Amino acid sequence: MKESIKVALLGMGNVGIGVWEILDRHYHRISRCVGAPIEIKKVLVRDIYKNRKVSVPTDILTTSFDDIVNDPEIQIVVELIGGLNPAYEYIKKSIQNKKCVVTANKAVISHYGRELMDLARYNGVELRFEGSVGGGIPIINTLNNSLAANEIDAIVGIINGTTNYILTQMTKWGKDFNTALKMAQEMGYAEADPSSDVDGEDAAFKLSILAFIAFGVQVSPQDIPREGITRISDKDIQYAAQLGYTIKLLATAKKYNGKLDIHVHPALVHNNHPLAAVNDEFNALFIKGDAIGEFMMYGKGAGTLPTGSAVMGDIMDIAAAMPNAFSNRLNRLNGFDETSEKLQINGEGSGEYYIRLEVADRPGVLGKISTVLGNYGVSIASVVQHGRGENVVPLILITHRVERNLLNQALEEIRKFDVVDEIASILRVESFSG
Amino acid sequence: MKESIKVALLGMGNVGIGVWEILDRHYHRISRCVGAPIEIKKVLVRDIYKNRKVSVPTDILTTSFDDIVNDPEIQIVVELIGGLNPAYEYIKKSIQNKKCVVTANKAVISHYGRELMDLARYNGVELRFEGSVGGGIPIINTLNNSLAANEIDAIVGIINGTTNYILTQMTKWGKDFNTALKMAQEMGYAEADPSSDVDGEDAAFKLSILAFIAFGVQVSPQDIPREGITRISDKDIQYAAQLGYTIKLLATAKKYNGKLDIHVHPALVHNNHPLAAVNDEFNALFIKGDAIGEFMMYGKGAGTLPTGSAVMGDIMDIAAAMPNAFSNRLNRLNGFDETSEKLQINGEGSGEYYIRLEVADRPGVLGKISTVLGNYGVSIASVVQHGRGENVVPLILITHRVERNLLNQALEEIRKFDVVDEIASILRVESFSG
Repeated sequence: MKESIKVALLGMGNVGIGVWEILDRHYHRISRCVGAPIEIKKVLVRDIYKNRKVSVPTDILTTSFDDIVNDPEIQIVVELIGGLNPAYEYIKKSIQNKKCVVTANKAVISHYGRELMDLARYNGVELRFEGSVGGGIPIINTLNNSLAANEIDAIVGIINGTTNYILTQMTKWGKDFNTALKMAQEMGYAEADPSSDVDGEDAAFKLSILAFIAFGVQVSPQDIPREGITRISDKDIQYAAQLGYTIKLLATAKKYNGKLDIHVHPALVHNNHPLAAVNDEFNALFIKGDAIGEFMMYGKGAGTLPTGSAVMGDIMDIAAAMPNAFSNRLNRLNGFDETSEKLQINGEGSGEYYIRLEVADRPGVLGKISTVLGNYGVSIASVVQHGRGENVVPLILITHRVERNLLNQALEEIRKFDVVDEIASILRVESFSG
Repeated sequence: MKESIKVALLGMGNVGIGVWEILDRHYHRISRCVGAPIEIKKVLVRDIYKNRKVSVPTDILTTSFDDIVNDPEIQIVVELIGGLNPAYEYIKKSIQNKKCVVTANKAVISHYGRELMDLARYNGVELRFEGSVGGGIPIINTLNNSLAANEIDAIVGIINGTTNYILTQMTKWGKDFNTALKMAQEMGYAEADPSSDVDGEDAAFKLSILAFIAFGVQVSPQDIPREGITRISDKDIQYAAQLGYTIKLLATAKKYNGKLDIHVHPALVHNNHPLAAVNDEFNALFIKGDAIGEFMMYGKGAGTLPTGSAVMGDIMDIAAAMPNAFSNRLNRLNGFDETSEKLQINGEGSGEYYIRLEVADRPGVLGKISTVLGNYGVSIASVVQHGRGENVVPLILITHRVERNLLNQALEEIRKFDVVDEIASILRVESFSG
């Protein structure tokens, strides 16, 4: 067996504990698998004397990153601090010092993925980030390796467990948003400040990374149109259910008319699609590739051990190729050329939409509304009128595919009608077509 | 860019055509991805002048395997003939001549997987077989690499598309078995002689490979207890639906009490489980790992392009590591030791069961039956009595976990009762617990 591979962990939070536990539990099997023992030589922490869930020997703890980056024995740096700074600097310096890097940091990779991949290649070391999207689900490695022969046409993902848990509680058990959020917080699925999750920011980070791997484009998370789930009402969930749909927060990147439509939006998913059955805190990634066809991966999108599993997989894969720091491994990112890098980003693009209007219960209302929609080229796939006999009644429209800006213009006109009390909801309907 | 990597295809059937098409379509991207062009230098066929769906230049076709195995330029041999012989011999000779091998051959790998892996390691070349299980679904590479840190507790798969299509037709559209089979044949999902699919033999081949990768044991497909779907009746499908279950043909390998329960059986899957929603010709693999938790992959389990995608992924991965024939890549198989190789195979083991009895509609019948079951330690989870008022009525029992042989003994006694017309069905209920 080869000499032990020396690893440093930056950070000993949830994921760090997961990595430590997995290595501890399967030390012998992992050593045989890799062909060498993996030794965690140093762990960067803020407070050496803090009580931890796992017992890390005090003499390997350090509060100085320099201790790690200047240690010539350390071959793999595992960054698990999270957030942009100082994680970005640490990753960069580690690569520059010819150390392989494994990270689960969605902020750093979504902002600096390309730069860091180039830097890693230039320095002849590996950079891996399986844990940055989808927790334990090995979506990055699958796209990079097993599906490398495929041109990817579409990725549609449920990649935020917090919002999926909240929507499941609202859909299955009739909870309202605030109660469901509170439950998510009690279960540890949501932070005290849940805004990054419920506003779709977290999903936009991850979608940016997926678009990078699948399509070779780096879209800044800020440039991805997004809408969270705070405005989803019980009513829409119920009407959607009556029409055979479930509302999910989807992160979508699809080639359409030579452009890349990319956005994070709550959407109606038809119940005969496997994504509709992805419940609770689970994540799933639905992919359409030109050879594999429809493909889906499902699993836990967060958590100590699932994310630890992804990080440990990356560490083992790099370690197995040692003594080479750069393993010459298949990577779909190598396949992209200037064409894909220039793929035009289309933001929200076009789609099918579910629209809930609250309108006066009078004859001729539907006629007026559909005339305006028709003027803007918005064609209607189905109409449901609910609760006749009251002053104001909901009118549900589902459109055929339409450019969102045309729909918006039509709705702007419709909003002004006296008979229209409000445009209560506009939600995408996910058709899964390219 | 490196010099081109020379590949030979053995066989130009469905999967061969898929590989040819994918390479043709994405030649430039694949070359960049791998770092070298991939050149199909020779193709072994039976008839050079046969009309083919893809236009392969005649001068690369050959009817002689020796032409290929003795060509020192050929680095990767891709075996797509299928069946045990001569495929097994060709793979062996290729490895002995220091050529890497990619195959989609479930028969060869399920029988000779360990021997061939050892032979490949001894000769310093790679042997890959992603296409042998689950078509395009990259289950082998995922277990070997991304999930390598996990101890696998259970694999439960829908790994035969033909039977899943038939069961879907029976369940969703009320077709009977023969009609559904005929439809499957017309769709090209079933062979003229469908016995290997409907009897569970095909699933047993694939399950044997999965057990090899996940648990490090080589179980001969013949030693895997199996039951097909020919005896599934419309009635059982309906009763199962009333109880909230869908009947699926499952291939199952699970650690339980330190042994490996392994079998192929039709089983009731609760509708809240994602496997219940896997319909038509799709396959899915549900996995429980000690770190990742519950994980599932879903996709097309057969077909020209999906299986071609898996084979091409293997070719590209080997080619990317060239000039090294052996890439030192992470492989969970390296992790097993004698303990896992000695994991005792328990065949069908224990489980929860659905039993449909046809019994006389008389008081006291349930009492008699449950007394006998109780004598053998079979405890009943639920009972449903259907269609009162006729001479013979169905009695549905669902048991708690019990050893199958104890259940069989109890049913042997029950079968002798005058009030029992027949024991119409015994089906497993998949609980997904370890």
